Amino acid sequence: MEPKSYAEAGVDIHKAESFLTRLKVSARRDGHRRLWRGAGGYASVYPVQGNHAVALSTDGVGTKLLLALEQDCYDTIGIDLVAMCANDLICVGAVPSVFLDYYATGALDEKVSDHLMQGIIEGCDRASMLLVGGETAEMPDLYEKGHFDLAGFAVGSVTRESLITGDELKAGDRLIGVSSNGIHSNGFSLARKLISVDSPFRKEMLKPTHIYTKPVVRLFSEYPGAVKGLAHITGGGWTNITRPKEALGYEISNHLPVPEIFQELARSISLPEMYKTFNMGIGLCVMTEAKNVEHIISIFSACDFNAAEIGEITDRGPSLIIKNAPGSSEDIYIHTKAT
Amino acid sequence: MEPKSYAEAGVDIHKAESFLTRLKVSARRDGHRRLWRGAGGYASVYPVQGNHAVALSTDGVGTKLLLALEQDCYDTIGIDLVAMCANDLICVGAVPSVFLDYYATGALDEKVSDHLMQGIIEGCDRASMLLVGGETAEMPDLYEKGHFDLAGFAVGSVTRESLITGDELKAGDRLIGVSSNGIHSNGFSLARKLISVDSPFRKEMLKPTHIYTKPVVRLFSEYPGAVKGLAHITGGGWTNITRPKEALGYEISNHLPVPEIFQELARSISLPEMYKTFNMGIGLCVMTEAKNVEHIISIFSACDFNAAEIGEITDRGPSLIIKNAPGSSEDIYIHTKAT
Repeated sequence: MEPKSYAEAGVDIHKAESFLTRLKVSARRDGHRRLWRGAGGYASVYPVQGNHAVALSTDGVGTKLLLALEQDCYDTIGIDLVAMCANDLICVGAVPSVFLDYYATGALDEKVSDHLMQGIIEGCDRASMLLVGGETAEMPDLYEKGHFDLAGFAVGSVTRESLITGDELKAGDRLIGVSSNGIHSNGFSLARKLISVDSPFRKEMLKPTHIYTKPVVRLFSEYPGAVKGLAHITGGGWTNITRPKEALGYEISNHLPVPEIFQELARSISLPEMYKTFNMGIGLCVMTEAKNVEHIISIFSACDFNAAEIGEITDRGPSLIIKNAPGSSEDIYIHTKAT
Repeated sequence: MEPKSYAEAGVDIHKAESFLTRLKVSARRDGHRRLWRGAGGYASVYPVQGNHAVALSTDGVGTKLLLALEQDCYDTIGIDLVAMCANDLICVGAVPSVFLDYYATGALDEKVSDHLMQGIIEGCDRASMLLVGGETAEMPDLYEKGHFDLAGFAVGSVTRESLITGDELKAGDRLIGVSSNGIHSNGFSLARKLISVDSPFRKEMLKPTHIYTKPVVRLFSEYPGAVKGLAHITGGGWTNITRPKEALGYEISNHLPVPEIFQELARSISLPEMYKTFNMGIGLCVMTEAKNVEHIISIFSACDFNAAEIGEITDRGPSLIIKNAPGSSEDIYIHTKAT
């Protein structure tokens, strides 16, 4: 039987969240007051010297790995790994700078590891980062033959002035959506079960995650202060849009083209569940005052990213409302953490 | 049949090394000239602002994880994870400051994850680090039920003046060994095959890795410049001793007590192979001028670590010679990378 939600696909998001919350509580000792708070908690920001801090993020690529194994194609999954980390760093206003990888496998296969590494290096190039270290672990009894896992660690630099906190966001600010490259690196435990191995979409699922570093760093540099909030659309789908300031309302009324693969997935999954799980064609949401919208979109265009104004922030209180969603005649209300 | 070496236990160290070398070559682009070079390559050192840099390390705990699973005991493996990263950072002169973890599992088990996290937090306390972030990945089809993997990412701070490069090391400098807490987190793919599940040593194998941060940071602060080299004894056993400056000779003539577990392992493995694989009772080697030896040992003692002068640096050229090794009537010559 086909799973109808992420939970039915075997991933308990709420259990994972409660665990993470507990972790935060137990780890938030006195010293944590030293950390700077960045918008949406996308990265930890640790001050180094004076006004200078490092932003830190870690992530993996989830079960997209299994797609790479299935298709015997290993040269792009490293791009996804870098993307997941780099796209998180920019959300707090940091400029991604260096990357380290953790690569664990049952038995080291040189062809596979070469391709993985080429992908990581390509990802670092796209993100303007340096690969400066890593760990290769050969664990014959932990991973099945041929299986492996990847984790990435990314460091960016940020100053007190360039830190994005989300605090400045207010009703009337605009939301700019930047197109994704398909389903990126989230929702695979579900998508793998819904799109059959012989489907033409199966290959498309492996397309690498867009890395938004270059246009965003250019924005930081050319229009300092213009970006008031950034949301990397990852696990949890569009609920991420509300992360920079959860007390506000977010209303989406205009839509970028939704890639066909999401329409295929929506044959089995309700639209609200789709928007809560997948990026639905938008990999990054930029929040800014109305006067900056045109400039910002032009910078994304200059870097070959399709971007458009998709909505605005309201004073309705904690909420995410999706109007005019392709394929739906009704508004979609998404339950967000703060509601 | 019992494996007689690490390679026979399924781990191909040379293949792993050639892969790592290739990685370094392909990743060492122009930008890498910006990195500062720290002794032994234990951590990458990335300058942030002026004289201030961050040191970065990543590591896992290898198949020691499987021991934790076997013994259904999860509260100390997180200490090992922090230890592997923090002990690397201090080797370049950095003061460990923050830690992030990557935790991937087939299905999140709250009891297990609580214990893992308690261990990580305990490790951070021992290392005087803050746990500031992490990623929990639930990957039902990648990990066997109950299986999991852990990776750690640590950041320390270091200045141009406090960086340990190993350059100052010269013949006549002394080697101080600091006791380990058993086999720490290396050589498990071999040790697990040699020590049977019903052996009394099996439980001892899980003892957590010593974290040397506190005495070493105290040394950095009280005797700046006294530590000319530091070697964390990890994978590759005592060959690590030569890492801070591989062109020199290293001669060990005095020995700390060798924990019984190594004598048990040596029943199946030749002594040279033992010294090339395990820490043999020494988890950290401190290199300094003769005049500082007594002071340095007293600081380790004050922090409850057993330390002793174990040998000296010679001008014999790239070499590691172990004299008077317990259980051996002959000198042991260990082939090092540079020989």
